[in-house]
Amino acid sequence: HHRLSPTPSCLPTSNLQMAETTKIRFGFIGCAEIARKISRAVALAPNTVLQAVGSRSLDKARAFAAANGFPAGAKAYGSYEAVLDDPEVDAVYVPLPTSLHLRWAVLAASKKKHVMLEKPVALNVAEFDEIIAACESNGVQLMDGTMWMHHPRTSKMKEFLSDVNRFGQLKSIRSNFTFTVSSDFLENDIRVKPDLDGLGALGDEGWYCLRAILWVAEYELPKTVIALRSPVHNQFGVLLACGATLYWEDGKVATFYCSFLANMTMDITALGTKGALHVHDFIIPYEEKEASFFAATESGFDEGVTKWVNQPKAHVIKTDIPQEALMVNEFARLVTDIKFKNAKPEKKWPTISRKTQLVVDAVKASIDRGFEPVQIQE
Amino acid sequence: HHRLSPTPSCLPTSNLQMAETTKIRFGFIGCAEIARKISRAVALAPNTVLQAVGSRSLDKARAFAAANGFPAGAKAYGSYEAVLDDPEVDAVYVPLPTSLHLRWAVLAASKKKHVMLEKPVALNVAEFDEIIAACESNGVQLMDGTMWMHHPRTSKMKEFLSDVNRFGQLKSIRSNFTFTVSSDFLENDIRVKPDLDGLGALGDEGWYCLRAILWVAEYELPKTVIALRSPVHNQFGVLLACGATLYWEDGKVATFYCSFLANMTMDITALGTKGALHVHDFIIPYEEKEASFFAATESGFDEGVTKWVNQPKAHVIKTDIPQEALMVNEFARLVTDIKFKNAKPEKKWPTISRKTQLVVDAVKASIDRGFEPVQIQE
Repeated sequence: HHRLSPTPSCLPTSNLQMAETTKIRFGFIGCAEIARKISRAVALAPNTVLQAVGSRSLDKARAFAAANGFPAGAKAYGSYEAVLDDPEVDAVYVPLPTSLHLRWAVLAASKKKHVMLEKPVALNVAEFDEIIAACESNGVQLMDGTMWMHHPRTSKMKEFLSDVNRFGQLKSIRSNFTFTVSSDFLENDIRVKPDLDGLGALGDEGWYCLRAILWVAEYELPKTVIALRSPVHNQFGVLLACGATLYWEDGKVATFYCSFLANMTMDITALGTKGALHVHDFIIPYEEKEASFFAATESGFDEGVTKWVNQPKAHVIKTDIPQEALMVNEFARLVTDIKFKNAKPEKKWPTISRKTQLVVDAVKASIDRGFEPVQIQE
Repeated sequence: HHRLSPTPSCLPTSNLQMAETTKIRFGFIGCAEIARKISRAVALAPNTVLQAVGSRSLDKARAFAAANGFPAGAKAYGSYEAVLDDPEVDAVYVPLPTSLHLRWAVLAASKKKHVMLEKPVALNVAEFDEIIAACESNGVQLMDGTMWMHHPRTSKMKEFLSDVNRFGQLKSIRSNFTFTVSSDFLENDIRVKPDLDGLGALGDEGWYCLRAILWVAEYELPKTVIALRSPVHNQFGVLLACGATLYWEDGKVATFYCSFLANMTMDITALGTKGALHVHDFIIPYEEKEASFFAATESGFDEGVTKWVNQPKAHVIKTDIPQEALMVNEFARLVTDIKFKNAKPEKKWPTISRKTQLVVDAVKASIDRGFEPVQIQE
């Protein structure tokens, strides 16, 4: 099949047409709940278009396309393979259960499709390394679906955390992500099934906490991970709640907690020698167009110790484009550079996915080994 | 010396005089920084009066009395003993270094003085048990100086946490208390001296975190305590930073972190099956007359997973009287009942002090034993 080269501006093609022909064409393999949100994001992002959706059921694929704003020319397929074989698909979004990631991400890469892969990216880092290898050898971009990384608030928070005058040296991180699930979820959701999302709450929720911790720590891997001694498993051994403490050689410490059994919270607290940061809705902000975080520098008391000086201040960041559309847009920007400008895939994204998976694996290993300390080796 | 009996209302004494004669008369032993704040509290509380202050230096005692609003009739003494021997002192406030608590609290009790004891209440629970025994055998009230327990916000938060419909069953607690100290503090403060406040940051800061955790858990003691593997000691072995994870038999888990080396934070996060609570200034509120906490019940997402429903709401509690004056007032109310109404000392306060000290001891033991799990025995 034929691919457009990047078109020099002297060509007599209207900008509008040009824009359409350079958009990155997304194919979805699977119709999971989260795919609804990503469909909307692909429709919203200026550089992407919904091209195809495949399900094991053609009816389901058609219904999904109809319900989620796929344009008239989009295809619905009764298999995942058909999406991968569609020459008009540039990139695939993979919202399948984790146990299917290895097979389908590798197959997608082998068909030269760029891969946006839902988290957790794999059941373990060995699997993910196979996915990385397949993407590298086929020259395709790989990015995981951790949306909050792309919210403009995230870079604003990072500015604060990176500022030695405002935050200083990092000492401690805390993150939790919890939500209470229904009895139906506890019976039937793929996230409680050992053969589907076998990492349970650790993969679904803990992933975000661990990414947040690594993000705060500038992606420096902890040396040692020790799971909390209070994991909750279902009758099939899938984690419904867990946590861990992470240690770095320089004395930094982080703890996280995730649970399907406690009211929704999604917090990061980062403590530095000079500053502190709090955010309570880091994964999905309270509101779509406006998000806050709280930062303080050199807090203390007044002379009479009756009130704080340098109290935490709310920083409010507005965005017209939802974070998932910004994620899709960033992914498509990289794909565009590869497709039209002979750029190489950006390694930053698979690298941080891999580090997150490494720590997920260490937490799992510590739980499985009776809460022993697990050393992380890159 | 003569003590007034409770005066029946038929006596021809004006209400104003009556009020003065029934006020509980405080003697301070020691002029620590924190004593300034408690002086103000005793002056503010309607049922107490500043009666005496003793220091090893008479000049220092006089200067303290002059600078801290002691009334004309108040006494300044050049020793602690003199305060304890003053028959016009009903109750003593003990802001001495922790290593002196045993000696002076026991002596105060033996002189029938009611005892308000700064935290940590002792170097270990064995010492505190001697203090409790002395207070019990002498029929005097014992209360520690954990001010935030007495803020009206605290009871409002407890209402939320106790409400099965709004909070549900408790699952997880997090608390941290940190502040960055000066290099002078690190050299000279009593809180870094092994022979004075030998528990360091654990006793000074961790005390509050552990009290908060016990308070959330309805004072049910955890079964097991495991210290974080990242304690920081100074060259004399005094803790400058530490933390621990606490486990209950029913699966509840708590973690705390305290440090002299990170910007000021004082947080509690409590997660229940139906609700969540966040507070960021629980020890000393940002502002003296108004304090907030954030509570959420059955939080979730909207249909498109674009925003939260049932977002945390700020609850604002106003108080005209600072929390330390409310503390002094509550202590004096109990003392008044003992002094004038033959009431027995209220055991609730020493009981929760003792539980807090038990957990402090367990954290210390876990650190000293190489981060081994320590079982708590009541």
